[in-house]
Amino acid sequence: MTSSASTSSSSSIHPLDEALQLTASSAATGQYEGQTHPGYWNMVGPFGGITAATLLQAILQHPDRLGDPLSLTVNYAGALTSGAFTVQATPVRTNRSTQHWTLSILQAGADGAQVVTTTATAVTAVRRETWSVGDVPMPEVPAPSAQPAIPPGFGVEWLNRYEMRPITGAIPRQWDGSGDHSLTQLWMRDTPARPLDFVALTALADVFFPRVWLRRARQVPAGTVSITVYFHATAEQLQATGTGFLLGQARGQEFRNGFFDQTVQLWNEAGTMLATSHQIVYYKE
Amino acid sequence: MTSSASTSSSSSIHPLDEALQLTASSAATGQYEGQTHPGYWNMVGPFGGITAATLLQAILQHPDRLGDPLSLTVNYAGALTSGAFTVQATPVRTNRSTQHWTLSILQAGADGAQVVTTTATAVTAVRRETWSVGDVPMPEVPAPSAQPAIPPGFGVEWLNRYEMRPITGAIPRQWDGSGDHSLTQLWMRDTPARPLDFVALTALADVFFPRVWLRRARQVPAGTVSITVYFHATAEQLQATGTGFLLGQARGQEFRNGFFDQTVQLWNEAGTMLATSHQIVYYKE
Repeated sequence: MTSSASTSSSSSIHPLDEALQLTASSAATGQYEGQTHPGYWNMVGPFGGITAATLLQAILQHPDRLGDPLSLTVNYAGALTSGAFTVQATPVRTNRSTQHWTLSILQAGADGAQVVTTTATAVTAVRRETWSVGDVPMPEVPAPSAQPAIPPGFGVEWLNRYEMRPITGAIPRQWDGSGDHSLTQLWMRDTPARPLDFVALTALADVFFPRVWLRRARQVPAGTVSITVYFHATAEQLQATGTGFLLGQARGQEFRNGFFDQTVQLWNEAGTMLATSHQIVYYKE
Repeated sequence: MTSSASTSSSSSIHPLDEALQLTASSAATGQYEGQTHPGYWNMVGPFGGITAATLLQAILQHPDRLGDPLSLTVNYAGALTSGAFTVQATPVRTNRSTQHWTLSILQAGADGAQVVTTTATAVTAVRRETWSVGDVPMPEVPAPSAQPAIPPGFGVEWLNRYEMRPITGAIPRQWDGSGDHSLTQLWMRDTPARPLDFVALTALADVFFPRVWLRRARQVPAGTVSITVYFHATAEQLQATGTGFLLGQARGQEFRNGFFDQTVQLWNEAGTMLATSHQIVYYKE
């Protein structure tokens, strides 16, 4: 699980781009071959954000794609094992300005047969300028430079691919059951710095540690079951964000009988809402 | 488009149950035949909530189902036309306590070929009692009996299937461009009254008129592209809710270049969070 090659600053390719490399298969249109990347490894599989970004990457590489990402839902059916995987991305319906996708990730199981590890749907859209307004202003928080970058506090490799500067709701220092809220606000970006695009934004929507850890100040087993990302930004707005920080805000709404939900908002430093996201997360006990 | 038969109070079957009748096809496991229902007709197709409920109904009827609904994402690829449709529900992966589903609705197109109108994914789960907490308390609002039932103000048939008692953010009476927020709170339930279950809850998550109408006090064309529902309640909690009202709360977060998102919370009168939901919605101009 060494990641020295992937994180070397002398490498000419960013670890995120390494992780998202997909090769079009000659077997079928929309079929891509990829490899899990040690630099984005979580506890028992890849970081969920990198898996979501990989599915979006397949759409972005697809020769028949119409427009830019509008929504993406990824369901984590089973952990990917280290190694090769296949992505299948199919545009099942193309309208005048929207296109609907179904996707899956497959991996060879113990007996050699292909197993579905991940399912997804997505919508891409050609967007036009209209009346627009943000109805959730970015919270007033200290600038990124005013907040120290804090090590995330639990040793999984993918966290080293992100610079995180928590404002409130950092990971508890003591697991003493004293938690009383589930709100995290933090500045964040890829490290090394990398210009923002749709795939990077997708992964950033999933960087928050489990809300149940914060709410309970107790570190119970937890894992995302399903995540949805709604993209509000244009490619130009992402480009203008460049390597700047995003303000990420995450909150749980309901924790009940083994599952909680999380709502997420992502703004750039200029206060533009780039994406909103939601997920439902398994937890134990 | 008459719906007299379906809404007669002497009918022994509730219009919702009529609309959700699916017949298992002999052609393939998980394939079901249904019919659009005039009582739930919207402007150019069925009410989106009834389509989402239909997909969940297929899962609930499937002989291989494990557990109760946990999450459902429905993508409206194209409007259904009036008449017969086919639902395909496939459990693509079954784990110890979760099951992952992919679904689609197909209809014969103009040339007779089957066309995908709707795609979906879902997760069902066997849930066990754990530590639980609600982190978004129900807002303090007047009781349902204190709020008059207000006609929704735009003439589509499906609205007659719901009793709605708005508290704040009712549909604007004047389309004068004066809007300044996107928050709606209302008490709501099926009419005639019908005991709550997962399919009714699913449809109720989609009853809110487009946020852009409220935010702008302007009635522009709008339609849901994708909706996600997270189920927090057990079947027993739904049963205990019975025919009581739900408090529904909906808000837009970002309106940008032809699409806005909507976040939704649904509580029962006892203040239990039954579901949270999100959608991304197309709008014109």
